[in-house]
Amino acid sequence: MAKDLAKLSINMATVQEQWNLAQCLDGFARHGIGGIAVWRHRLAEVGLKEAARMIRDSGLAVSGLCRAGYFAANDAAGRQRALDEFRQAVDEAATIGAACLVAVAGGLPEGSKDLAGTRRQVWEGLAKVVEFARAAGVRIAIEPLHPMYAADRCCINTMTQALDLCDALGEGVGVAVDCYHVWWDPELQRGIGRAGKTRLLAFHICDWLVPTRDLLLDRGMMGDGVIDLPLIRGWMQAAGYDGMAEVEIFSAENWWKRDPDEVCRIAVERYQSAV
Amino acid sequence: MAKDLAKLSINMATVQEQWNLAQCLDGFARHGIGGIAVWRHRLAEVGLKEAARMIRDSGLAVSGLCRAGYFAANDAAGRQRALDEFRQAVDEAATIGAACLVAVAGGLPEGSKDLAGTRRQVWEGLAKVVEFARAAGVRIAIEPLHPMYAADRCCINTMTQALDLCDALGEGVGVAVDCYHVWWDPELQRGIGRAGKTRLLAFHICDWLVPTRDLLLDRGMMGDGVIDLPLIRGWMQAAGYDGMAEVEIFSAENWWKRDPDEVCRIAVERYQSAV
Repeated sequence: MAKDLAKLSINMATVQEQWNLAQCLDGFARHGIGGIAVWRHRLAEVGLKEAARMIRDSGLAVSGLCRAGYFAANDAAGRQRALDEFRQAVDEAATIGAACLVAVAGGLPEGSKDLAGTRRQVWEGLAKVVEFARAAGVRIAIEPLHPMYAADRCCINTMTQALDLCDALGEGVGVAVDCYHVWWDPELQRGIGRAGKTRLLAFHICDWLVPTRDLLLDRGMMGDGVIDLPLIRGWMQAAGYDGMAEVEIFSAENWWKRDPDEVCRIAVERYQSAV
Repeated sequence: MAKDLAKLSINMATVQEQWNLAQCLDGFARHGIGGIAVWRHRLAEVGLKEAARMIRDSGLAVSGLCRAGYFAANDAAGRQRALDEFRQAVDEAATIGAACLVAVAGGLPEGSKDLAGTRRQVWEGLAKVVEFARAAGVRIAIEPLHPMYAADRCCINTMTQALDLCDALGEGVGVAVDCYHVWWDPELQRGIGRAGKTRLLAFHICDWLVPTRDLLLDRGMMGDGVIDLPLIRGWMQAAGYDGMAEVEIFSAENWWKRDPDEVCRIAVERYQSAV
């Protein structure tokens, strides 16, 4: 049985070289896709209020707002800037009605090798913004990123770490499960079960290519790599997740160079056949 | 206090574009370095017996033989070939008196997305060779590789996985702790403690560069990246490890292009200052 396209979302990053916000809203809707994930700088391009109006008018659901975090810094001023940014992102997520605000922890501060200390700073930073997000009705989705980003992008690298944070932070905080980042983790199934329905806030899909030619910009379309996406989707469903599946593909040499309508068409096909 | 160079080893891969076995043995000894890690194809180049004689004559200790494993395959014949190869590697390790045989699990068989099944095959493969290794007096060092290699090189990606294997396999099996592969793991300290003296069979050092430009061939010299090597070395020592520290750097664009004597000199310096 065909999957419901209303539960398919595409992250703007997937066609970021081809389409702006207006074009994404129009294009995704034209392909019958039910949702969009938005980046903050794309909201800034058209202005928050106008962006919110455009999104509302499009009828698309917002599966997530990308992103805030990067909590650790070498001084108090840097840490404060991150908190201010995060609160601003919360406001934006509330304004556009995003299903969640994606929190990416950030990596080591410049010159630091203190991974444990950096992780403590992330914990402390999140603790300082969680009440603000709760009051705004915005759910924070902590996204564990692949360990190859531990140094420079995100020091939260496993579901276990993310869920330990959730446990400490309480209501309104959950996880974004991005298959690209966590597919290798032997604890993944357990982590999804531990998260449970109320903490599974997003499900990101793409594929891990063999070989992978770039650490950042060589993600594959679902079905072109080695991730058993139906297996992971089954774990999400068994845990009660009924949100959207969001296609997020960073691909400088392939998908970013293609006709964006072709990207949407193939994403829809693969959502049906390979997820 | 200066560290004892007798406890420093260099993996031949670090100068693989510059020096063959004879040159490595000569060069490392000239720099006062106490050990070498050897690759199997380098033994084949000169013949096993001759290689063993050369190594013995050099006075260098062998911190490890690289490598055997790649257990999973799509058919029984492929799995059998891996086992035969492994036993041959055991014989070679015994012949050259290697402190351990490094076992790299291997990734998914061609066309497979069955990660859990592949991991089971690794488990079953190791179980079939462990008695042979034990009888030969060769210790098997399971090396967890970074999760970015889970698909194509090694589906054992954490100390926890490796140690669960050790628990199941019993005596004569331990782990190779390569900082490059495990530095990001929030369970690393616990894993090293869990391993304990008898199962900590190797300690590989290099550094994680920011940015990392290639998934395979852009490792850094100790001190040039973000890994807190003294911290991890301290955990190893606290757990009772008193073996060698082995420098293993794959670096197509930098260290493989330098004068190998310079590489040795800097490795010695950094062993003192950054490990």
